[in-house]
Amino acid sequence: MVDACICTIGDEILIGQIIDTNSAFISKRLNESGIRVTQKLSVGDDYSQISKTLKSISQEFKVVVITGGLGPTKDDITKKVLEDFSGSSGSVMNQQQFQIIKDIFSFRGVAISELNTRQAMVPDKCTVIPNFKGTAPGMLFKLENGHLLFSLPGVPYEMEAMMDDVIEHIIDNFKPANIYHRTIATYGIPESTLSERIEKWENSLPKEIKLAYLPNPATGIKLRLSSYSGDKNFVINTIDKYVKELKEILPEDIIYGEGETSLEKEVVSILKKQSLTLSVAESCTGGKISSILVSIPGVSSFFKGGFVTYSNSSKINHLGVDPLVLENYGAVSKECSIMMATGCKNRFNTDVALSITGIAGPEGATQGKPVGTVWISVAIFNNVESHTIRFFGDRERNIIRFSSEALNFLRKMLIRHLKA
Amino acid sequence: MVDACICTIGDEILIGQIIDTNSAFISKRLNESGIRVTQKLSVGDDYSQISKTLKSISQEFKVVVITGGLGPTKDDITKKVLEDFSGSSGSVMNQQQFQIIKDIFSFRGVAISELNTRQAMVPDKCTVIPNFKGTAPGMLFKLENGHLLFSLPGVPYEMEAMMDDVIEHIIDNFKPANIYHRTIATYGIPESTLSERIEKWENSLPKEIKLAYLPNPATGIKLRLSSYSGDKNFVINTIDKYVKELKEILPEDIIYGEGETSLEKEVVSILKKQSLTLSVAESCTGGKISSILVSIPGVSSFFKGGFVTYSNSSKINHLGVDPLVLENYGAVSKECSIMMATGCKNRFNTDVALSITGIAGPEGATQGKPVGTVWISVAIFNNVESHTIRFFGDRERNIIRFSSEALNFLRKMLIRHLKA
Repeated sequence: MVDACICTIGDEILIGQIIDTNSAFISKRLNESGIRVTQKLSVGDDYSQISKTLKSISQEFKVVVITGGLGPTKDDITKKVLEDFSGSSGSVMNQQQFQIIKDIFSFRGVAISELNTRQAMVPDKCTVIPNFKGTAPGMLFKLENGHLLFSLPGVPYEMEAMMDDVIEHIIDNFKPANIYHRTIATYGIPESTLSERIEKWENSLPKEIKLAYLPNPATGIKLRLSSYSGDKNFVINTIDKYVKELKEILPEDIIYGEGETSLEKEVVSILKKQSLTLSVAESCTGGKISSILVSIPGVSSFFKGGFVTYSNSSKINHLGVDPLVLENYGAVSKECSIMMATGCKNRFNTDVALSITGIAGPEGATQGKPVGTVWISVAIFNNVESHTIRFFGDRERNIIRFSSEALNFLRKMLIRHLKA
Repeated sequence: MVDACICTIGDEILIGQIIDTNSAFISKRLNESGIRVTQKLSVGDDYSQISKTLKSISQEFKVVVITGGLGPTKDDITKKVLEDFSGSSGSVMNQQQFQIIKDIFSFRGVAISELNTRQAMVPDKCTVIPNFKGTAPGMLFKLENGHLLFSLPGVPYEMEAMMDDVIEHIIDNFKPANIYHRTIATYGIPESTLSERIEKWENSLPKEIKLAYLPNPATGIKLRLSSYSGDKNFVINTIDKYVKELKEILPEDIIYGEGETSLEKEVVSILKKQSLTLSVAESCTGGKISSILVSIPGVSSFFKGGFVTYSNSSKINHLGVDPLVLENYGAVSKECSIMMATGCKNRFNTDVALSITGIAGPEGATQGKPVGTVWISVAIFNNVESHTIRFFGDRERNIIRFSSEALNFLRKMLIRHLKA
């Protein structure tokens, strides 16, 4: 078993000024490659604290990945700590990284400064992992006890691009164990109900196989089956068998995919496969659903656009919602959501249109319509169907859950009407 | 000095399936109250690992906050560990939490199950911190060495609502030290340039005052001045003096605010103060800018809505962009962005309209317009102004930076035209 520790460096993490997304990304990549992360920690920008921590974790773990503290400014001290820790006799200029830095600045049309040039200097005991997306190179130190210590920049998209090299170095050095996961994505069933529904199945799992519930307001509850040891084929076959059983226990429309999927990825996949065009009319979600779809590359082939009709007048003017409907039923109503969907479909001339109108809060509740109420409609071919639900949360969470609920409803409508 | 350690529990964190946002939130709240977080760590859902970690950190730190592992399902074992760790003689039903659980299920119109009821059971040695947003109560254990151990649920919005109670308990028990921070928000200046510009000032800082650079694609670079000790008034006066100097060194339009602010908050504040209405026309950002604005409560008073015109035909049909402009200059051009802004302003009948059109990538680059190119226009009263920039990043990062650049340009235009 190759076990790893991830250590993120920076006062901004300890005081909560930034959310650490790096360690999740690194964990995922290591895990996929059979390297098990058994600890994570964060320390501040403090020479002795970093130094002490490096000493202790590089003793205990075969693989240590640290991120952060490699910027050009004075508060970034990781490189200095590493120079001393690795027993380097000084710094050397890395020509490959220096060339990358020159290229980046010439692309930006900005003159290269002394501080930028210095970014290409590295302790002489390290192997450089080039950073093609930024100025700070990654570094690998092969320690005397045979362990590997990687130092990567804290900028997520720079670090992410370097992980392939990191994994390759680890695999070259160690023979990682077999880690096998399968993750089943469900949406629309509360955690406690799901747990009761699969209780018998869960109790029948052999103890080498671990089940985890991963609830998330955007992606629903994912069920992950994992094994960290054992004969590869046996483990794979066993987990696959249990996944098959699980799929028979749960209703078909609850399970929407596997692994790293999301509701939007499923929707996009169906639309692309069927060559259907889509438009979206959003009130309470204010463009969130469109932006979720647009975050996926290549959507321009089917996504024609949308309206953010945050005011009543824009619902009337841009979507053709009847003012009487607004007066009689209110903006958060089945009737309004239907007119939004059909209006959007006509005006964008798409095969399918999704509409949503609700009360995200904290203001806006009316008699019989508390915060958290939402109406969703899907116009598809010549049909319109609607759905309502009431969530219990604050504005931010309601907007996320409204968006997911709408994407899931759209997914279900697509499946139903393509079958028919 | 009251120092604290945050420990998040869950295999999903170690395998990178979720991003830990809880520890950032907790850090921030503790820090604001004078409690310094000096370590963070994450461990898996494993009885002996949790138990061993709790033993070690509750010895070292006066305050320990753990989150996660309190769900109703079998993989959630934190409560069991705590029962044993605290030397409780068993579990008792907490009536207050049980009532909350009943209320939540009645609001949802769902029957309460055995699993849900069990959520109200807690080890008899704990003080309950009620969870009004969910089923799992928080728990405080007062340890024999006088240290405090808090256990909170892992669901962010539930945990967040409980932090006031946590802070109150800590302050009741300890007299926290004086921690003072000021954070200056800048946008539009690269980190290395900023660093060179303020080098002399930075070198003149007394050593009790720490400077940190906090770069973020959405909020720009924030500069944080911190002090963790010393006489309160002296520290406050000194930091305030250096902030004043900093504001004199940097160009006025680079600094956009202080502390927890963001570009969108600044834009919203100006629009509200001046009673101006806004609409937004988005191409490459696909609704992102609208959804950023809508994430702030109470925007309906000035935000009228927007168009997501992801296709050329929708730019023509919904914004009145001249087809000849698209043919001669392309969709990513100053000309197109101007027609998008003025078209949006007219159709939504607002005082101000923002438009954006660019190439987020990975596809869509053309001769002379590489991925990362963006055009932004702001129509305000009877003026239109445009701005272009080229970023260097992947799709996700480009969409974030395009959105921030647009919000910053809108902010600058508002300030300029309101002055005039």
